[in-house]
Amino acid sequence: MKLYTYWRSQAAFRVRIALRLKGIETELEPIDILKGDQFSVAYRALNPEMVVPTLIDDDGTPLVQSLAILEYLDETYPEPPLLPRDIRARAHVRALAYTLVADAHPFVVPRVRKYLEQELHVDEPGRIKWMKHWMDEGLRAVEALLARDPRTGRFCYGEQPTIADICLAAHITSALAFPSYDMTPYPTARRIFDSCMKLDAFAQAHPLKQPDAPRAN
Amino acid sequence: MKLYTYWRSQAAFRVRIALRLKGIETELEPIDILKGDQFSVAYRALNPEMVVPTLIDDDGTPLVQSLAILEYLDETYPEPPLLPRDIRARAHVRALAYTLVADAHPFVVPRVRKYLEQELHVDEPGRIKWMKHWMDEGLRAVEALLARDPRTGRFCYGEQPTIADICLAAHITSALAFPSYDMTPYPTARRIFDSCMKLDAFAQAHPLKQPDAPRAN
Repeated sequence: MKLYTYWRSQAAFRVRIALRLKGIETELEPIDILKGDQFSVAYRALNPEMVVPTLIDDDGTPLVQSLAILEYLDETYPEPPLLPRDIRARAHVRALAYTLVADAHPFVVPRVRKYLEQELHVDEPGRIKWMKHWMDEGLRAVEALLARDPRTGRFCYGEQPTIADICLAAHITSALAFPSYDMTPYPTARRIFDSCMKLDAFAQAHPLKQPDAPRAN
Repeated sequence: MKLYTYWRSQAAFRVRIALRLKGIETELEPIDILKGDQFSVAYRALNPEMVVPTLIDDDGTPLVQSLAILEYLDETYPEPPLLPRDIRARAHVRALAYTLVADAHPFVVPRVRKYLEQELHVDEPGRIKWMKHWMDEGLRAVEALLARDPRTGRFCYGEQPTIADICLAAHITSALAFPSYDMTPYPTARRIFDSCMKLDAFAQAHPLKQPDAPRAN
């Protein structure tokens, strides 16, 4: 398989984690979102939305939307599972994932920051406040869902990582990229994040471990 | 079952359609989002994110996040299916759904409009431009995915509605609530929307058919 990826993209990070958890060897093809690589004719043919990630399956079929890709990988390569077997538990895990993916992450992507800057003339402190606000809202909801639930374990659901942990790890990694981001209101989420990052699949998929990440000098 | 709903919410609309497609009798409990009903202590205990919808299952368990609820209903009541059987097709249908749910809808909900108004002092024309921009972006991506795909039929995937159609119908219903919203760039999406709205399950779940909708005089 081949993954079009961008080091700092939460959505690409999610797919990188899932591919590693499943043990699927993947060629990484960086797309520089800030430079505008995603608008090329060739990439647009693969991903009409012009966003990352795109996963190219072994027969050349392009797959888009990170959560659709996670479900696809789980249905195609069932071990280890990324969703529990129990139907009610699956709904819980998906709800945690969607809370972050649909209600928090959309607000911090480059195309939204660009709209805020260029169309609404929001200055940088205003844009940072906006991003932190929505990241906080997402974490607050997820913390409440996790803290009240007896199924919460070392991970979001029990003792094995699921798509909820994948989305949580990507979200918190983005949050911690802000200087002095305050995680103290989210102790359960923080604890689970730490459990995730101890796993090789998460640690190796980290943005700063990517070939297209800026080098520390 | 009991559904906490708001007439104009796209997310609640999605779940109302699915419940009707599955033939599940449901008590509707309106939550007035503009009045702030979602912030009550009682509702927050059911839905820590304080958003609609929340589905209360027959044993009293609250289920949150519309897409998690759609998947739950499909796993619990398999007929008629809301997802194709074929794994690759499931990924396609989910990708269409998430493009709208995660990359367009988040920008038009009341809490975001409120932030734009109160924190960023964006006036009403600016807020309308913002909303139309993201609705257009979502529709442009979905139109491209649908128009190029041989699997597109009377509905997003073949001849039966799936979760993609549910999300598309809710999205376009919101778009058409704007005076003079231009659907001409999206002929495939428009045609599928019309197919959807001919079905009772979609038509009866429409925002303006809800008990808490404003009455036409």
